Amino acid sequence: MKKRVEIEYCTQCRWLLRAAWIAQELLTTFEAELEEVALIPGTGGIFEIRYHEHVLFSRKAAGRFPEAKEVKQLVRDQIAPDKDLGHSDRR
Amino acid sequence: MKKRVEIEYCTQCRWLLRAAWIAQELLTTFEAELEEVALIPGTGGIFEIRYHEHVLFSRKAAGRFPEAKEVKQLVRDQIAPDKDLGHSDRR
Repeated sequence: MKKRVEIEYCTQCRWLLRAAWIAQELLTTFEAELEEVALIPGTGGIFEIRYHEHVLFSRKAAGRFPEAKEVKQLVRDQIAPDKDLGHSDRR
Repeated sequence: MKKRVEIEYCTQCRWLLRAAWIAQELLTTFEAELEEVALIPGTGGIFEIRYHEHVLFSRKAAGRFPEAKEVKQLVRDQIAPDKDLGHSDRR
């Protein structure tokens, strides 16, 4: 299974910069593990981070935006469960 | 055919920021046309922008990095040939 993370963001809400920030956080942390991060324009207030069929984070479901740290933990659990995230691992 | 652009960048060369910049330029300009931009970690000095089987820009072939303007023109020619890029269209 391709190690691909999707970030879908609402263009009307101007969340591209936020989506690109999270993409860069993930690609920096999982430089050796991730095969790609896809930035996907969406509408209607969506801000969703997905790994294949798993929605790792949904702004609508959570009622807030994610912090980089928790996105890294969620992605790590999918693609590199043994990876130590250092200070990003303290909850 | 999915309107997907790929940007593969060399992680050793630390070109992620440059790749993310180009991704954001494209997603801003082609907000309504693009379905996704994928950031793909690579090695060995690669900096390549692709649309399916077409290599739109290769740093190795060109001997330089692309300017945002020319990447937009190249992507436009693939996904929205009638789109006017305004000041990005003067060569």
